[in-house]
Amino acid sequence: MRNDEMILLDHGGGGRASRRLIEEMLLPRLRNSALARLDDAAELSVNGYRLSFSTDSYVVDPLFFPGGDIGKLAVHGTLNDVAMGGGNPIALSVGLIMEEGLPTDVLVRVIDSMAEASRQAGVPIVTGDTKVVPRGKADKLFINTAGIGIIAPDVHVSGSFARPGDVVLLSGPIGSHGVAVMAERSGLEVACRSDTAALHGLVQDMLQAFAGVHCLRDPTRGGLAAVLDEIAKQSSVCVHLQETSVPLGPGVQAACEILGLEPMHLANEGVLVGVVPEQGATPVLQAMQAHPLGRNACAIGTVQEGEAHVILHTAIGGQRILSVPSGDLLPRIC
Amino acid sequence: MRNDEMILLDHGGGGRASRRLIEEMLLPRLRNSALARLDDAAELSVNGYRLSFSTDSYVVDPLFFPGGDIGKLAVHGTLNDVAMGGGNPIALSVGLIMEEGLPTDVLVRVIDSMAEASRQAGVPIVTGDTKVVPRGKADKLFINTAGIGIIAPDVHVSGSFARPGDVVLLSGPIGSHGVAVMAERSGLEVACRSDTAALHGLVQDMLQAFAGVHCLRDPTRGGLAAVLDEIAKQSSVCVHLQETSVPLGPGVQAACEILGLEPMHLANEGVLVGVVPEQGATPVLQAMQAHPLGRNACAIGTVQEGEAHVILHTAIGGQRILSVPSGDLLPRIC
Repeated sequence: MRNDEMILLDHGGGGRASRRLIEEMLLPRLRNSALARLDDAAELSVNGYRLSFSTDSYVVDPLFFPGGDIGKLAVHGTLNDVAMGGGNPIALSVGLIMEEGLPTDVLVRVIDSMAEASRQAGVPIVTGDTKVVPRGKADKLFINTAGIGIIAPDVHVSGSFARPGDVVLLSGPIGSHGVAVMAERSGLEVACRSDTAALHGLVQDMLQAFAGVHCLRDPTRGGLAAVLDEIAKQSSVCVHLQETSVPLGPGVQAACEILGLEPMHLANEGVLVGVVPEQGATPVLQAMQAHPLGRNACAIGTVQEGEAHVILHTAIGGQRILSVPSGDLLPRIC
Repeated sequence: MRNDEMILLDHGGGGRASRRLIEEMLLPRLRNSALARLDDAAELSVNGYRLSFSTDSYVVDPLFFPGGDIGKLAVHGTLNDVAMGGGNPIALSVGLIMEEGLPTDVLVRVIDSMAEASRQAGVPIVTGDTKVVPRGKADKLFINTAGIGIIAPDVHVSGSFARPGDVVLLSGPIGSHGVAVMAERSGLEVACRSDTAALHGLVQDMLQAFAGVHCLRDPTRGGLAAVLDEIAKQSSVCVHLQETSVPLGPGVQAACEILGLEPMHLANEGVLVGVVPEQGATPVLQAMQAHPLGRNACAIGTVQEGEAHVILHTAIGGQRILSVPSGDLLPRIC
């Protein structure tokens, strides 16, 4: 990226432009080993223990959508990032940026939703901050959350730990969040609700079944395509993905056909990908299927030696490199 | 607060309206013991160790001002909040919300400034997130940071720990940040630079000299008046403040006279208040004065039994209750 450019919506999309922004502009300046790993969460050593630490800002539009709202998303999203670092979350922070004129009842609904999500997840919001900016200087409400989790001694996960021979597991059908938000925004009638959910319980069950899981990622912005491509690049391996093995959420197929979307690019907020050594694949898959959020878990591919990208084995028997969304498919999806 | 109201700029000012928003709307919904303490940072127990965890969002306008910028502020501000919880900071997260069209060179200057502040403080930015919203949906750049610190076993600080007989110490002259930002925004010619600085080194020296410090607070939004009033209310004590003992930053007196401002209400970003038992006051004050950021440290008052507010002993020998700013003196000061 050149310094005479400007920030575009594409830089927030979780695809190629986002990656360029982060890798070319931010990482070289803020360089340190934890950040350079480019995982969903950083790993910190504290007195011999390891913590998983992560943050996300939420700017979703609209604030309320079928199956969720910005508050629920802000709790779930960061809990999930902490969990994808192998950590069992213990606390969240929240920072609210409010636009002057935000109706108090809207704020109350969002805070009630955050409180409910935090209680259900068993992880308290322990510290926070509020800012108000003049009307027109923000859009209603933005929320940042950060989270801390404890990583068990035998757990070592990273996007860079995928190895040839590993099996790629998916916890459930994809695309529901992306389609639900898009439908709400466009007025499209689709029977689709966001899958937003806190995945740390599922992760703990997976790690209990087999602590040697190599990678954990939740395919949010940029979808399944972006996270598998990132794992391929971080680990210098080739991910082979079976298109027919990837389940789609209810209404997702129809919406993709109407709107010409690639389901693999759609955002998810309650689905995870696990990359697991072959000997662990069966116990981990069984643990996933025994959990309410992993009932439809399945193996969707394998890790092999080769070029660092994703090869999609299509329904009709072909093969192609799975593209990463280049720009922002859908601004403000989370 | 009633549900049919709306959020006003005053709710972000750090004064009475902010406190009502937090105490009447947010706390009852997110209730838990850590949050209810209303300190700058939450205290977490992890495997027998204690962590200090804090977050702040930064929406300062303009992004660059004499003595600092939003990036420096975002690093210093959260390091300071972690330090005010008694923690020695070990890591920061950063969340960027960018407006489409933000010139890349502006982003680069801010990130370079964050990187420099993080390096100087010796605390890495280990995890982050970027979001972009369409033009007009945010104002250039908002930054959230969260921070984690380790609290030494013998350190126990909280705004609720002030006791009659304690001495109130101030690390340096007040008002510089508020006046610097206001002057930059209004075009007023004042020789005043923001005092933005990372205070955790100063705090460690204070705690080394005397671990039994009762309260630590940095008077940001709402100024010295708001933090002393909060300490009085959290601890149910009366704070007696000697007006003539409170040093003002260069140019602050003049700006306050021109603009009719109360220096005690002005925001600071590199100053702290310590409330210390009498037997610790001298060693802590000496430790402060030996540190570059506490050269002008001084005792400014005492804690006594009585009504939970601040009594200002004025320069002309009078006494009055020190008011807390009711609304937002200066929106987007940090």
